[in-house]
Order: sequence, then C-alpha cells, then structure tokens
Amino acid sequence: MTEAYVTLATTDGYGVGALVLGHSLLSHGTTRQLCILVTPGVSEQVRSALSQVYHNVVLVDVMDSGDSAHLALLERPELGITFTKLHCWTLTQYTKCVFLDADTLALQNTDELFTQPELSAACDVGWPDCFNSGMFVFVPSQETYEQLLDFAKTKGSFDGGDQGLLNSFFPNWHRLSFVYNMVATACYTYLPAFKEFGRNVKLVHFLGSTKPWHGESAAQPGSAYGSFVGAWWTIYRELVRPSMPQSLVEHFSKLSTNENLVEGRQRWEAGRPEYMGRDSFDNIMAYIQSRINK
Amino acid sequence: MTEAYVTLATTDGYGVGALVLGHSLLSHGTTRQLCILVTPGVSEQVRSALSQVYHNVVLVDVMDSGDSAHLALLERPELGITFTKLHCWTLTQYTKCVFLDADTLALQNTDELFTQPELSAACDVGWPDCFNSGMFVFVPSQETYEQLLDFAKTKGSFDGGDQGLLNSFFPNWHRLSFVYNMVATACYTYLPAFKEFGRNVKLVHFLGSTKPWHGESAAQPGSAYGSFVGAWWTIYRELVRPSMPQSLVEHFSKLSTNENLVEGRQRWEAGRPEYMGRDSFDNIMAYIQSRINK
Repeated sequence: MTEAYVTLATTDGYGVGALVLGHSLLSHGTTRQLCILVTPGVSEQVRSALSQVYHNVVLVDVMDSGDSAHLALLERPELGITFTKLHCWTLTQYTKCVFLDADTLALQNTDELFTQPELSAACDVGWPDCFNSGMFVFVPSQETYEQLLDFAKTKGSFDGGDQGLLNSFFPNWHRLSFVYNMVATACYTYLPAFKEFGRNVKLVHFLGSTKPWHGESAAQPGSAYGSFVGAWWTIYRELVRPSMPQSLVEHFSKLSTNENLVEGRQRWEAGRPEYMGRDSFDNIMAYIQSRINK
Repeated sequence: MTEAYVTLATTDGYGVGALVLGHSLLSHGTTRQLCILVTPGVSEQVRSALSQVYHNVVLVDVMDSGDSAHLALLERPELGITFTKLHCWTLTQYTKCVFLDADTLALQNTDELFTQPELSAACDVGWPDCFNSGMFVFVPSQETYEQLLDFAKTKGSFDGGDQGLLNSFFPNWHRLSFVYNMVATACYTYLPAFKEFGRNVKLVHFLGSTKPWHGESAAQPGSAYGSFVGAWWTIYRELVRPSMPQSLVEHFSKLSTNENLVEGRQRWEAGRPEYMGRDSFDNIMAYIQSRINK
C-alpha cells in the first residue's frame, strides 16, 4: 500500500514551484512518496533537480502518438492542459494520492488527507458548489482514467480546464475544509475570517497569474500574502537553491522579473487595503525556520 | 404551522429593498407569510408601504431599555446591528423561517427551503468554511434567542457582525447550494461556472456597498450584474412604485444618486472585463415580465 502526493509541472517556473512544494511537504515530515508529472516544457536541468526531491519523476506528453489521450485530443485540442492533469489517474503503482498544484505550499503536515475518499476537495471561492482542483484526493485507476478521457471527449469542460471537467465528472465530491486549499486571496476577501481561522491553514494556494517564483519582492512583511510569499522564498533559498547547479540558479533568476512582481503586489493591494499585523509574519517565519533547523 | 420569510430594514434604502424583495417572493407564488423587522431608522412612510406587502411589520429597537438585548449591548455596543438581526429568533408565532437580507432578490420560488433544518445556509465566497448570513433557514425560539445573546456577550463576533457570531454559534450548519444565495460578484469571479449553473440561481444577493436602489443606471443590458440590477428595477417600477405615495417616490429618488451608481459600475467592471451575452439579459427580463403579467 503505497500512497503519494502528486503534482505537475509544464514549465521551469512550475518546476521550481514543485521543488519548493516538495520541500515544504518533506519539512513537515510526510511519510508518503512524492511524485511529479512533467511535460517536455520542463528543462532537463529542472527535471534533474526534481529527481533529487521527488521519488518519482514521470515524463508525460499528451501529444505523443502512443499516448491514449492523443486521439481524444485531436477532437478537443483546447483541453490539452486538462488532459495532462488527468494522467495522474494512470499512476496505479499508488493506492491513493493527493494531487497538489505546483503553486501550492504546505504550512503543516497534511497526511491525514489520505484517509479521505475519492474525490475529496475544498470549495472554490468563485462558485462554492464547485471544488477547486488545486488539491484533491484521488484513487489511481486505469478504468477511471479511460472514463475521464471519454467524458472529456463527449462532454468537454465547462471552463475549458481540468476544474470544470473534474467537477462535472465527480458531482458528489466530498467536501474538505478550506484550510486544505486556502486561496491566498481569501485573506483579503474576508480578513476577519482569516484572522479567526488562518492559524489552522495547512496548505496555501497561490491562485492567479502572479506566482511566488515571479519574484521575491512581494515577500513583504506585514501582509498575509507577503508572509506566504516570504515562506515560499525561505524554502527556496534555504532548501532548494543550495542543491541547484549554478546555471539553473541563474536561469531561474531570469524567470523572476521585477516587473511581474510590482504588478502583482499592486493588484493584491488594490483588492483590499488591510493587512495582517507584523506579528503574523514573524510567527510564520519563526515556524518555518524551526522546521528547517530541525 | 405558520412559516415565514423574514427580512430586516434599518434605513429607508433597505426598506425599499425589502419592498422589492417582498414582491419578488410574491411574484413567484410563495405560499408563506412575509415578515419584516424594522428599526426606527425606517421612516413612517416606508413602514406604511411595507405593511402593504408584508403580513407582519415588527418594530424593533435594540436600544430600548425594555429590550432583552439592551443590557447585553451595553457591554458590547459594537454588536448593535448584529443584535437587531438576532431578534428574528423571537418571532415564535412562526414554526420555521427563512431569513433573507433586504439586498437579496428572488429569481425563482424558493419555498422548498422550509424543508431544511436549522441552521441551513450557503457558503460564503470569502471563506467557504463559513456560511453567508444573507440567507439562512432558522427555527424561532426564545431559548435560542437567549443563548445567542449570551454567546454574543461572552464570545463576541469574530467579524464584528452577525455572520461571525452565527457561524460560531452554529458550527455544524447544513450546507445549501450556492443558487440559494448567489453573490452577484460570483459571476465575475468564475464566469464559466456562472454560465454553466447561472440558470439555476434562485436568489441573488447584492453584496457590497453599492445596492440596486442606489441607481438604475447600473441596470445595463449585456452584463450579468446589470441584468440582476435591471430585474430589481423592473419590479420596483412595475410593482412597488405604483402603490407608493408620490412623496415617498420623490424621497426615494433622492436616495438613488447617479454618483453611487457610476462608481459602482466602474468597480464591477474593473473586477472582470467579461460580460454575459445580451441574450441572458433578455431572457431574465422576459421571465420577470412573464411573472408580472400573470
């Protein structure tokens, strides 16, 4: 009975995100395997770095003619990225898995998720009758995979992505607490709730077009969002970068442009002018530091 | 066994909101009573208009020295508005009630809500582990009311309002579909979901500082938000205004300033540049028209 956390990287940026995610899971003492699906869009260098952290690096290419998704894709090319995520159901060497987007970060151990049934997930903030597909508990199965491909071909996805498809395929999903997939924007949308429940958050999700790896300057103390980005960068700097070849570090630096950053921060700040107190940032940093020094 | 929809108005603006809400419930053929709690902030004129639509207009004043909430409030004055909403549990002439904020609008009959247990509600989009207190099913009870007051005094409210208090008091709330309390912003946050599920929406909630009664110019065809505001104004113009005294119509016109409006629309539009097609607006208008002409 082998269980695994599964993630997916389609670019080097997401690859570095996956490195940080992997370290965040390990630093909280997970007893499960780590597995990553990568597409050819991830460079050899990043794949090599990923193999130092992940037990299993699986190269997938939905456009391979030998691939079972190939024919389906010819009919619905717009679902390409969706199909890539569906590959996780083919990982039948595992009995149960937790899928995590590469733009998530574990703040606590989440291994209790493996006691949950397929398909377990947390509400999406945009339309809470749907689950957010950034985190979900699933059971790998070739049969389910084939059914998903068939469903995608015949019904498509109402949002053009994996979230719409999976929500239609699993209408009776099991609801998990928001603390297992806390969208970083939520602390701005309903700050009092974040102040009340934020300490329970186990997994934070950097939803949106600006990702932590776009730059460290968003990691400002004094805001909840800044503290999460800061936590990401602490793990990157202390656990990921030291074992990365110099050329990869330089390659990655180029990914994180200041431009993306400033734009991102402005957007966050425009959403809601309130911030968490400085204490929260210090607490999160002290906690992460304590995990790293263990 | 008498059941009722219950709402609350603290100002004339909310009073007019309640008039439209009441008509929207009646136009969809509700078989339940309509009851409204009003504070002295609502003018005599508006209260008189409300009594034409609501079976029961209950004047409440949490600062009355004879009021059971008075002593509690002296200790926690910041919870004043919260305490007003708690009054709905004192309506023990009803066996079960559905509370609706005065800034909600029924798009379909929602009487099936009365089959749900206390406390039933829909997820809040900001933090979906919480329910949004703009709509909830409850059972009036003097005992629950006293417990709520005591809870408010001793524990307070994590967001300073009724939503925080009620979520803490009813931690095991029963989850209803988002279609029973669809926040008007949601169609912008996750437009594909709105396109997929929007036709099922039964109750829309105009959350935020700009309300439909702030002006008709937001009622523009071509956007989901505009169509909801348009539906509100159609009911106001065709069902509410004709039976209002002229002085009240003029009083109300002054409430709806163009300034609020333009600002409101800009904020909505800045959030998400996409709009629903013109067809949706036409469909909603045609539907409302058909209900009115019945």
